Amino acid sequence: MCDDRRMSTTGRRVGRPRAQTRPDSGLTAREELLGAAAELFTERGYAATTTRAVAERAGMRQASMYHYFGGKEDLLAALLEGTVRPSLALALGLAARHEVPAEARLWALCRADAALLSTGPHNLGALYLLPEVRADRFAAFRAVRDDLKAAYAALLAATTAGSDLAREDLAVRADLVFGLIEGVILIRRSSPGHDHEHDPAAFAAATADAALRVAGCPEHVLPKLRREGEALLAAP
Amino acid sequence: MCDDRRMSTTGRRVGRPRAQTRPDSGLTAREELLGAAAELFTERGYAATTTRAVAERAGMRQASMYHYFGGKEDLLAALLEGTVRPSLALALGLAARHEVPAEARLWALCRADAALLSTGPHNLGALYLLPEVRADRFAAFRAVRDDLKAAYAALLAATTAGSDLAREDLAVRADLVFGLIEGVILIRRSSPGHDHEHDPAAFAAATADAALRVAGCPEHVLPKLRREGEALLAAP
Repeated sequence: MCDDRRMSTTGRRVGRPRAQTRPDSGLTAREELLGAAAELFTERGYAATTTRAVAERAGMRQASMYHYFGGKEDLLAALLEGTVRPSLALALGLAARHEVPAEARLWALCRADAALLSTGPHNLGALYLLPEVRADRFAAFRAVRDDLKAAYAALLAATTAGSDLAREDLAVRADLVFGLIEGVILIRRSSPGHDHEHDPAAFAAATADAALRVAGCPEHVLPKLRREGEALLAAP
Repeated sequence: MCDDRRMSTTGRRVGRPRAQTRPDSGLTAREELLGAAAELFTERGYAATTTRAVAERAGMRQASMYHYFGGKEDLLAALLEGTVRPSLALALGLAARHEVPAEARLWALCRADAALLSTGPHNLGALYLLPEVRADRFAAFRAVRDDLKAAYAALLAATTAGSDLAREDLAVRADLVFGLIEGVILIRRSSPGHDHEHDPAAFAAATADAALRVAGCPEHVLPKLRREGEALLAAP
């Protein structure tokens, strides 16, 4: 509550309800609210952020915000789902590309997912570990994330190395590949200003290479798989 | 604040200041406070937890708690440092064992660190991503974690595959190995009740295997390195 009062005195613009994009940012009101929530949730903390602070940061009144989001949980759910839905859509598309080796498709998924988690102005993956995310309201996010993990496991099972693994070993290996990709959330947090911030594409590619190593791909086949994976992402 | 009032009405035991271990748990008052803080910070959230709630959960008055900890930040700092200090101590010991291949020493470090992060009643690694941890009070934790990461990088640089890498590639590879190990924090969160909870030692060993794959060790040398790594941990 105190935070809100402080926010009100900072002189931030308090705008009217609007459905149009803002001329200065080119963003819709919904996008501005999500951006404000992303900043405040990751910089100040979810529990410490009020909907009023989000609305003010986005330049609108709290009442106008409720036109777009039902409350703080809706903002968090939208942010969380935005970190998994694009990768799941890609994974579903890749699952049908049987003419391409599963290893190359797994590389492409890892490359795109690592890039999604390691770029953007805020480290949204850090919100995965909030205790609040265990609530029913976030069941849809958890379901999409589970589906994404299942898509990783299915691609892994279709690789040459994966097809040799026992069922329980495959499950552990899928967890480790998925954990390596989501691990970029922790790398990003611990290495602000590190080289990968200057070249996020190279870092995402190196992460995808590492994922194939965990999957059991021999080193000498990696260059070919990487080329095939890059081609998949260039023209999916 | 409301939480505190609710806590007070739950009938939890409120004890006197004491320096002795408790007969029923065998824990010191300090350990009981850390356990209570670990539970509340990870289950309810750090921002939402008061020192009073921690004291009550540990069965003592808030005033008695201040005998052991200066406040909530001290409790968090102690919990965070407890997740990295044991692994750093192990890493420093392993650094001197030049008669053992660097790969086996890296395996041992990964195995022990993954076990530390993936066992225990609470997923303390989830606290790494709190925005509060950026504050000066947690500089010591961040320094120990940086030292631990540097120890990983030094072992990696001493491996056969690592010695062939350019400096910037080595830094990225070290980040990925470290990220894979810390990634167990996210795996643990997303897979409650999963097989690795039933066999955490096997999961930690599989994670260490994966780390050596990321480090570039060929598959056929893994069994030997794992045996050497296990021997190092059995008689360090």
